Amino acid sequence: MIVADFSIIPMGSGTSAAGYVGAVHDLLNEAGVKFVPGPMSTSLEAESFEQLFDVVEKANKRLEGMGVQRIITTVRIDFRLDKEISIESKLQAVKKT
Amino acid sequence: MIVADFSIIPMGSGTSAAGYVGAVHDLLNEAGVKFVPGPMSTSLEAESFEQLFDVVEKANKRLEGMGVQRIITTVRIDFRLDKEISIESKLQAVKKT
Amino acid sequence: MIVADFSIIPMGSGTSAAGYVGAVHDLLNEAGVKFVPGPMSTSLEAESFEQLFDVVEKANKRLEGMGVQRIITTVRIDFRLDKEISIESKLQAVKKT
Amino acid sequence: MIVADFSIIPMGSGTSAAGYVGAVHDLLNEAGVKFVPGPMSTSLEAESFEQLFDVVEKANKRLEGMGVQRIITTVRIDFRLDKEISIESKLQAVKKT
Repeated sequence: MIVADFSIIPMGSGTSAAGYVGAVHDLLNEAGVKFVPGPMSTSLEAESFEQLFDVVEKANKRLEGMGVQRIITTVRIDFRLDKEISIESKLQAVKKT
Repeated sequence: MIVADFSIIPMGSGTSAAGYVGAVHDLLNEAGVKFVPGPMSTSLEAESFEQLFDVVEKANKRLEGMGVQRIITTVRIDFRLDKEISIESKLQAVKKT
Repeated sequence: MIVADFSIIPMGSGTSAAGYVGAVHDLLNEAGVKFVPGPMSTSLEAESFEQLFDVVEKANKRLEGMGVQRIITTVRIDFRLDKEISIESKLQAVKKT
Repeated sequence: MIVADFSIIPMGSGTSAAGYVGAVHDLLNEAGVKFVPGPMSTSLEAESFEQLFDVVEKANKRLEGMGVQRIITTVRIDFRLDKEISIESKLQAVKKT
């Protein structure tokens, strides 16, 4: 499993991004991707790089469909080979310390 | 109020960061800064840039004190002039859509 | 065209990343992707999200093949609908101001 | 020496950021900070966290003075204890591989 977070910033579409973030969350629900909204980004779990990138691309295309003219996306990916990770395991690891 | 998130990645100190993230959370508690741990980063509220930067610097110095030899920090800052924001208001804005 | 930059941080593999970054640059050359190395990240041009994501995934797999046990990747994507952009056009736009 | 890069994204101020990035570069010149513009971010060298944070705050305040209503800043910091680094040394390290 890959854990990642991403933020999508629309430029030239006003100062509020909530409507666009909401549209991306709808998309994640439709795609059956587990995600956790945060104040600065949305964290998600993906089975593979393909699945992760698929939702990032769809998110951009959805905002394009909503008329956004420029989109800055930041994706941060935790790809770990030495043990299984999940959103839950990562949150628990920090709480235990 | 400034809302920000930041991640601190120790290099050359093994694959687990949980102990270091825990130390940073201790520091945030000591500093009286409101924060929310996430799976990929820690979000926080700061009264000013000074307060935000102070904790980021202290976090780096604390990891230095723990023997970390290289630290990659990413800070993402939401500085909004047209309305008051908080961690809570940002989470609520997305839920309402 | 999409302009993006990405950084790849190996955890648990020492404090130096230069060998890994070099391997990623080899991969970008093999893939025929135009890129510009920077001090903190590598910028590149991609014809599509698919091409961008393909190299990001390959970069992770190459580091996995080199024995890295955990990899934190950050990809920042500029997807602009209102005009054509390139690495060159973006650098020129800033110089003109 | 700390090497860092940062990007400043104005929201609600049109799709072009070049004028704002140019203003930030003026500010870096005035402050005597060594920097290298890139297609996705600006890299810089700072003597200390204080100097780095000072320019990041001033950049936000300058954009505020230009009427920007919301600013998303991302700062990525390379704080290395095991050897001296500079923009030049980091670029050279990658070229050598």
